[in-house]
Amino acid sequence: MHKRSLTKPDGRRLWVYGRDGLPETLIAPSPAGSERDAGTRRSHLRWHPLRGEWVAYATHRQERTFLPPAEFNPLAPTIDAKAPTELPAGAYDVAVFENRFPTFSAPADAPPASIVDTAPASGAAEVVVFTQDQKASLGVLPAWHIELLFDVWRDRYVELGSREDVQYVLIFENRGVEVGVTLHHPHGQIYAFPFVPPVPARELERQRAYYEQHRRGLLQTLVETERRDGSRIVTDAGGAVAFVPAFARYAYEVWIATTDPIPSLAVMDAPTRASLARVLKAVLLKYDRMWGEAFPYVMVFHQAPTDGQPHPEAHLHIEFYPPYRMRGRLKYLAGSELGSGVFTADTLPEEKAAELRAIDVSGMLES
Amino acid sequence: MHKRSLTKPDGRRLWVYGRDGLPETLIAPSPAGSERDAGTRRSHLRWHPLRGEWVAYATHRQERTFLPPAEFNPLAPTIDAKAPTELPAGAYDVAVFENRFPTFSAPADAPPASIVDTAPASGAAEVVVFTQDQKASLGVLPAWHIELLFDVWRDRYVELGSREDVQYVLIFENRGVEVGVTLHHPHGQIYAFPFVPPVPARELERQRAYYEQHRRGLLQTLVETERRDGSRIVTDAGGAVAFVPAFARYAYEVWIATTDPIPSLAVMDAPTRASLARVLKAVLLKYDRMWGEAFPYVMVFHQAPTDGQPHPEAHLHIEFYPPYRMRGRLKYLAGSELGSGVFTADTLPEEKAAELRAIDVSGMLES
Repeated sequence: MHKRSLTKPDGRRLWVYGRDGLPETLIAPSPAGSERDAGTRRSHLRWHPLRGEWVAYATHRQERTFLPPAEFNPLAPTIDAKAPTELPAGAYDVAVFENRFPTFSAPADAPPASIVDTAPASGAAEVVVFTQDQKASLGVLPAWHIELLFDVWRDRYVELGSREDVQYVLIFENRGVEVGVTLHHPHGQIYAFPFVPPVPARELERQRAYYEQHRRGLLQTLVETERRDGSRIVTDAGGAVAFVPAFARYAYEVWIATTDPIPSLAVMDAPTRASLARVLKAVLLKYDRMWGEAFPYVMVFHQAPTDGQPHPEAHLHIEFYPPYRMRGRLKYLAGSELGSGVFTADTLPEEKAAELRAIDVSGMLES
Repeated sequence: MHKRSLTKPDGRRLWVYGRDGLPETLIAPSPAGSERDAGTRRSHLRWHPLRGEWVAYATHRQERTFLPPAEFNPLAPTIDAKAPTELPAGAYDVAVFENRFPTFSAPADAPPASIVDTAPASGAAEVVVFTQDQKASLGVLPAWHIELLFDVWRDRYVELGSREDVQYVLIFENRGVEVGVTLHHPHGQIYAFPFVPPVPARELERQRAYYEQHRRGLLQTLVETERRDGSRIVTDAGGAVAFVPAFARYAYEVWIATTDPIPSLAVMDAPTRASLARVLKAVLLKYDRMWGEAFPYVMVFHQAPTDGQPHPEAHLHIEFYPPYRMRGRLKYLAGSELGSGVFTADTLPEEKAAELRAIDVSGMLES
């Protein structure tokens, strides 16, 4: 993997990545010109004393790009120097840059006083542009390109995670208008948090209790059990497996986990990376073939915190939360889910796994 | 308050409530006729070992009514005996009945075996019809009617909570297509859970730790602080107050809390009930006046569990989670919220509280 670090005229950083080298001439543009947008570091955190969690306020984000006209795609390469996008033209495969309207940044402004505890929203918010092709999607990228992307995600995890102010790196993709996506160029995001956020914290707490009792991983045991059972397996590539967990909260929820219980991307070897890429591609192709249309989802990576502590309980995995419970019918999170935390599903994981398993994408995996 | 218990031909129960008495002649109808719908008790729970919470599966719910034609409203009084609805014709103000497609019920079927722990989905799922007037809404009901509704909610909380199999009673309303509502007749729901669900459990855990340390309530302290500060108060009626909490996760999030830290509706006195009704009405009228259209929300009551334990830490309050962050723009829960649990807001609680406070509904409160 080749990598180059650049700086935009407004001071934000850009990293470009290529499999076969990178041109010497790349210059980082910015649609904001040479001035940092006003107030982009005006975020802060407030403590929710009843839930025991931080809430982030980023009022400058109201000004952010919202469904821009089709003729302006800030994630496309810059063609016209008078209308710069976020990315240069040139031969690279993947690009990452600091969000123009970040919720988390460094340095972060001092927080205002409140009746509850407040803290600076320090950390990072980055955009990962998967490809220069705005008509592509993550699943149709060739296997080598998805493997390169796993290397990019690893690079960001390691670099952000090594920062003193970063305790957790969240890699995710929101896909589709149904989950609020405003830019349809294939891309994901990375948030670097100054604390371990509540959802992974809860998972890790359970994983740690299991690890301390059994000296092996909870998810490792679960993956082995799912493999033996077989009824919820979506696809299996040896080093990684995709399944609808027996306790799925969303109808088409899929988890992808490594077979070996590695804590994070930082220690992913080449065969595991190949398996992860293959399984991820298969899941995404199945999603899109199912109804013959782009299938919306939220995809999140859960892995070890970067808080300087050992995390033998952590086990790298990807969770998909798709908003549809059947074709044309969204699952709304309402009173039960939001007010009590109890998800109610009207389909069984076994049925949905069988549905996804039956979609044949074998001929599309080698491309 | 007058109350009558009836039984539908399919065995489900119906309770009607009236301020000024009830006719002797009420007979409970059912759109299902005299047969219990097949499979309505086929729900079960599965344990999510990484989140440490139960997930409910209720596959029969796929058959449930979905945006029925306008000419059939199952929550309207039955006019034509050949097309029975869920409710009789007659002079009553509020009605509650057991959901035809319940996620939780008693008795509940034995759960199937799985690779994770399973349990029966025992409990209850009830529908609360606020009024016979399908064109009304909770906020436009006269004060006496809302007070009656608080008595109904108390009645259901006490009756369901006294059951051995019920550890938590969740009173809620989902309002608007934006949160998935399929029937627009004014109504709410009640879920009775066989466990304390994770969201109130987390709140109560924090409240208990505070109570044990300070010998007073966390929310009590918070309400006093909000009142002293004033900047986030929406409306105040003495015995109850509405405010946008300093740590609001949704732009137009409002909490209504009693001034005295009563644990539940079971111990609500008449002045507190009057204050709660007045504050609730004011908040709802403000919501609907703001943009001159019905404002969607999820409304949930948080109060003491009914698990037989004392809960001095509990403090009755109502939380509103409205899906709009500004007019015409929904707040989507995506990677950060669902994958990490960190809510990101692009507005400040102080600004939204000022906006709601400024909407004058004083002339509409006495009706």
